[in-house]
Amino acid sequence: MKIAMLSPLSWRTPPRHYGPWENVVSLLTEQLVAMGVDVTLFATGDSHTRGKLAWICERPYSEDPSIEPKVWECLHIAEVFRRADEFDLIHNQFDFLPLSYSGFTNTPLITTIHGFSSPAILPVYKKYNERTHYVAISEADKSRDLDYIATIHHGIDLAQFPFREDAGDYLLFFGRIHPDKGLHEAIEVARRTDMRLVIAGIVQDEAYFKEQVEPHINGSMVEYVGSVGPEKRQALLGGALALLHLIHFDEPFGLSVVESMACGTPVIAFGRGSMPELIRDGSTGFIVADADAAVQAVGRIDELDRRACRDEVEQRFTCQRMARAYLDVYQKILDQRENHRPWGHYEDLVERHDHKIKEIVVRPGERLSLQKHRRRAEHWILVSGKALVTVGDQEIPLEPGQSVDVPKGAVHRIMNPGDIPLVLLEVQMGDYFGEDDIIRLEDDYDRCS
Amino acid sequence: MKIAMLSPLSWRTPPRHYGPWENVVSLLTEQLVAMGVDVTLFATGDSHTRGKLAWICERPYSEDPSIEPKVWECLHIAEVFRRADEFDLIHNQFDFLPLSYSGFTNTPLITTIHGFSSPAILPVYKKYNERTHYVAISEADKSRDLDYIATIHHGIDLAQFPFREDAGDYLLFFGRIHPDKGLHEAIEVARRTDMRLVIAGIVQDEAYFKEQVEPHINGSMVEYVGSVGPEKRQALLGGALALLHLIHFDEPFGLSVVESMACGTPVIAFGRGSMPELIRDGSTGFIVADADAAVQAVGRIDELDRRACRDEVEQRFTCQRMARAYLDVYQKILDQRENHRPWGHYEDLVERHDHKIKEIVVRPGERLSLQKHRRRAEHWILVSGKALVTVGDQEIPLEPGQSVDVPKGAVHRIMNPGDIPLVLLEVQMGDYFGEDDIIRLEDDYDRCS
Repeated sequence: MKIAMLSPLSWRTPPRHYGPWENVVSLLTEQLVAMGVDVTLFATGDSHTRGKLAWICERPYSEDPSIEPKVWECLHIAEVFRRADEFDLIHNQFDFLPLSYSGFTNTPLITTIHGFSSPAILPVYKKYNERTHYVAISEADKSRDLDYIATIHHGIDLAQFPFREDAGDYLLFFGRIHPDKGLHEAIEVARRTDMRLVIAGIVQDEAYFKEQVEPHINGSMVEYVGSVGPEKRQALLGGALALLHLIHFDEPFGLSVVESMACGTPVIAFGRGSMPELIRDGSTGFIVADADAAVQAVGRIDELDRRACRDEVEQRFTCQRMARAYLDVYQKILDQRENHRPWGHYEDLVERHDHKIKEIVVRPGERLSLQKHRRRAEHWILVSGKALVTVGDQEIPLEPGQSVDVPKGAVHRIMNPGDIPLVLLEVQMGDYFGEDDIIRLEDDYDRCS
Repeated sequence: MKIAMLSPLSWRTPPRHYGPWENVVSLLTEQLVAMGVDVTLFATGDSHTRGKLAWICERPYSEDPSIEPKVWECLHIAEVFRRADEFDLIHNQFDFLPLSYSGFTNTPLITTIHGFSSPAILPVYKKYNERTHYVAISEADKSRDLDYIATIHHGIDLAQFPFREDAGDYLLFFGRIHPDKGLHEAIEVARRTDMRLVIAGIVQDEAYFKEQVEPHINGSMVEYVGSVGPEKRQALLGGALALLHLIHFDEPFGLSVVESMACGTPVIAFGRGSMPELIRDGSTGFIVADADAAVQAVGRIDELDRRACRDEVEQRFTCQRMARAYLDVYQKILDQRENHRPWGHYEDLVERHDHKIKEIVVRPGERLSLQKHRRRAEHWILVSGKALVTVGDQEIPLEPGQSVDVPKGAVHRIMNPGDIPLVLLEVQMGDYFGEDDIIRLEDDYDRCS
């Protein structure tokens, strides 16, 4: 199976520190490669993969202001679609823009929706609902206007998040510093429980940071350690008493929630978005309604078993489980391809008002149904392999380069008596070329009725 | 000739008041339609045209903040490329994003570059330099990194800008209110010459307006009349003594400069960008270096003949002249199409390693050269029209649905003895399919050597 994996250009894949979409893309890619899948990763030029790397944009635009995102994003996306024929499937983890190129290829497209930045972007997803297969990252993030082929929770690499038996002595905030993430409430909870609070994450809203966070930072009871890369992350997460995740938005997924639990650290969260799907209330954390309840939950944190947190992640949130779930979906999409048949497959090459050309590939030993058409004559040219064709009451063996006419209404059949796939071009001539103008008289696959 | 004309979505086409790109698109479209060209205008749903209107986005995003530009722009562009096969040519007047879809169609693309908003967008234009035909809107706006098929100055509809013999008594600023456009210097020049200044245009830079413009507005000597639609524009332009166009950027083209001259009003401009191409210094205006020189130029304005300004526009800047220039370029592109031949044209439908399919269209009475190939056999199926084919020493008439084999090395020829175009499918089988594997033995068009 050959997969084109399309990552965003905001950060490196995998990211140096922040970059949740790129992080998930990398985890999935590397796990698929480890499972033997042929993956070509389309990402920034400085990305790392054990698969094949393809790139147009050298560096991530969030790290280099000279890179104009609109310019490089369209070049990046156009490149994967230019090469679409090389792949069985394109996995879009970018956002909505690639959808608008999806009409120009027959290669199936699967799109992981990492969240809707605004309801204003829904029209694109709706427009391409029929052309792509959507994967939700949580039940909570599903739009009722779209059809989804699956919900697949993100998975993490357990080796990066070792389990810590003993609870630490500080509360942890881990995420973007933005009102959505509720850091001001985490500061309040820490103050009221007289606990130390460690803050890690990029500043996304400068004004919020300056007004509601910075005044509280004192290096002792409230400490800001900046954005933390993969190496320090595990120590910070594992060493905490609890992660405070008091979000004010419907978070589609919370990677840090799962990473924290993997280290054994339970999570106290507001019950918005995906939180009830990630946290078992009273077992791997507490789902609370407000700051008062969060303060109470901190007091009850030693009721929870840190081992239960780890177990939950081992069972539900590993990158191995995520990769297997995606592989199942890939296979389902490939099996569903419109032009796949029990005997092989075909591809429509051209359709005009008075003729249509198909390329037909028949597997060794297989044969199509004995059939006829009301509204079209056909002309077959064998390109490779061997064919034994029936036209009326004649059986005709064909070698590559040979051709045969099938008059309108004549009973006919194609069979592959050889041991390699047969490739045949079919030129249909008439006034209607639908698949419903096939009258089957006999079929190896019981499709006559 | 069937043209798809791709307009931006920022404003209606034509714009209600501001919208220079949409204005040019509309002028060109309506003029082409008047000349009998079949134009489909892809623009906002509220647009007006005497051609065919095609739309995906109902209203312009600059007039409706609920419309997310990135979302609707990609849907709009994807739509024109989805329908590409219906057109002889796509004329892109949007910007760079459509270029990234151009690899997915064989329909030629012509792109009018209305200016480079930043050097950071050049990589897209460079990437598609081979795939599209660029038109510059002035010599000054050309990038040395790109190839251009032509420079075509914008044209205006003279009927909208009647000539006024008598000079007015005020100076006019007409354009976006932004530091680039030098309104602060126009205010200075008006003050120093003790002339009234009328200001018309949208506010694009609020801070600049508040700090450097608003304090001077007094309703008498400096008057701001807001953004002015097509009806009031002619009165304002025609009634002025001179237009002040003291720009601080390399303006690719200045529509208001030409509109002003059409009404007979000369222009005093800084000599940046396209200004020396639009204004004849000392005849239709003055090209000056600084505010001091602009003040002197106001004093000399009665040396200029208002009739000369009008004449210049009638000769060089009408929408008729613009449309004829574009038609010439369209025709040149169509004539240059790679797959056009003296006898008709062909299209490559599929190319695989061991076969290739072409659709060949031969005009009535024409015939291809008598030829042979070293490395491929061919198989022909006539789809419509009549053919008389030569294979070796045989002459074979073909009716639609009939086919014939041309073995590798066999001398062959196709002729159309009928009175409608002949359409023939050619399946080439071999190991090389280049146009240079044609050995011509005899040719009506002298291509044997």
